[in-house]
This record gives sequence, structure tokens and C-alpha cells, in this order.
Amino acid sequence: MMSNLTFAPAPNAHEREEGLVLAPKFDHDGLITAVAVDATSRDVLMVAHMNREALTKTLETQQAWYWSRSRRALWLKGETSGQIQSVKDIRIDCDQDCILLIVEVAGDGGCCHTGRQNCFYRRVDQITTDGSVTLSFVVPKTHT
Amino acid sequence: MMSNLTFAPAPNAHEREEGLVLAPKFDHDGLITAVAVDATSRDVLMVAHMNREALTKTLETQQAWYWSRSRRALWLKGETSGQIQSVKDIRIDCDQDCILLIVEVAGDGGCCHTGRQNCFYRRVDQITTDGSVTLSFVVPKTHT
Repeated sequence: MMSNLTFAPAPNAHEREEGLVLAPKFDHDGLITAVAVDATSRDVLMVAHMNREALTKTLETQQAWYWSRSRRALWLKGETSGQIQSVKDIRIDCDQDCILLIVEVAGDGGCCHTGRQNCFYRRVDQITTDGSVTLSFVVPKTHT
Repeated sequence: MMSNLTFAPAPNAHEREEGLVLAPKFDHDGLITAVAVDATSRDVLMVAHMNREALTKTLETQQAWYWSRSRRALWLKGETSGQIQSVKDIRIDCDQDCILLIVEVAGDGGCCHTGRQNCFYRRVDQITTDGSVTLSFVVPKTHT
């Protein structure tokens, strides 16, 4: 299907910030940052990137598509894992260079390729005397 | 103060994902994406970038410092607005190319330079017949 979606650049900063037309600012690699938040737990699941086609497909299908920078390929999240992200709400930030997706996750409800529920499974623990910064695993949430 | 913080690159993908040493992957511009979440409301407040110095200062001071790409300057969030972000928790994602900050906001508790509580104050509304995508303002949350 040829998409007829257009993303015209905003004519000025005021329109970009206060206007009611989507005018995403893709960076010099043609990408925009996308943050996915779980609609139920409200956890930040992952941060990835979209190119124009991924954003178009996300808008048209209401499933999250991303652009994999490492594989240089369009990517339907969950296509192999079953962790399809159904998009319930799409937000854009003030200067329209970041997308926020509120999603419901299919399959086992997870997100991260390491098997964790989300990608942010480590927190900064402490700064050591030799100047390195140690991490610790975040205790998985129990669903109470 | 000269910082002695070191961010050694992870020796391999396994260490990057499962290791307990912070080894942030800065991009070709020397930046890493940072997402700030409000510790109380759990709203995603903003998405910005940090260079090595901003990350170091954030770790050392427990206040959020960013790198402004437009102003090409280090930036203590809230320095002029009073909306200082006190960092309660710092997470890193699986491939260590994104930082998640859980913050408490001082001043009026807001974040966005437009005066809103957070930067994601518009949602995708609909795709019009001419192919443009319209937005609508998110109704501000009432604190009930």
C-alpha cells in the first residue's frame, strides 16, 4: 500500500510547539527518537528510533514499527517474539523531535531482547574510588 | 573540580548487557539520549541528550545536567527556571545507549519551556483525507 501521509515541516518554531499538525523533526540520519511506555504498568519499556516509514506504518497500523540502526532495517516490534506493541496513544514533544508511544504489549508482555520485561533493568549503584560507576539489577516488579 | 569518573567501553556485547559497570555508548556526536520521568506522577517529562560531561555532572551532583544541541552548551536543568531535577534513580538500558532518570522537580514542578508540566502535551488525533496528521492537546491532569 502506498501511503499518502505527509509530514510537512512546521513553518516556524511557534507552529512547531503550539500547532496542531504533526511536523516531526527527523535528525540528520532521518531518524526520530521514540519512547515506549507500558499503558498498564506505566514503565518505560524501551527507547528506539523511527525513520519516516516506521512512523508512517506505526500511525497507519497502530502497531509500533521502528528502524533498527544496527541492522539498518525496518522492524515490526514483536514480529518474531510475539511482543507486538499495540499503540493506544501517540504523543509528540514540544519541538517535535521525540515520539512517546503508550502501548499494550502482546505475547508474554515483555519487551527486552535479553528476556526482561523492559530494557531499563539496571540502575546506577555507586561511584567507586577508582572512578568507575557500578550498576545493580533492579529487582523485578511483582504484579500485586 | 576535576572529575576522575571513567566510562570504559564494555569489552563485548555480553558485558554491555549483563555487566555491572556503567559503559555508556555515546553516539557519533558524543551524545547519549536521556529520558526524565517524574518520580511522583511517573509521567515522562522530557527527552534530551547528555554528553560525557553532562553525565558526569549528573552522577556527581545528583541533579540533571544535559547538553543542549541547539545552544551547544552544557545545561543545568532548572538553573534559570528553578525546575531543578533532583535525581532519585538512574537506569541504563540493555545496550547502554539510553539513560533513564527518575527525578523530583523543584520550583513549580514543571519541566517544559512552553510552561506545561511536561513536554508531551499533544497527542496524535487523526489522519486527515489529505494525508496530514492532526494533533490535539492532552487535557492537563488534575492532581486528585
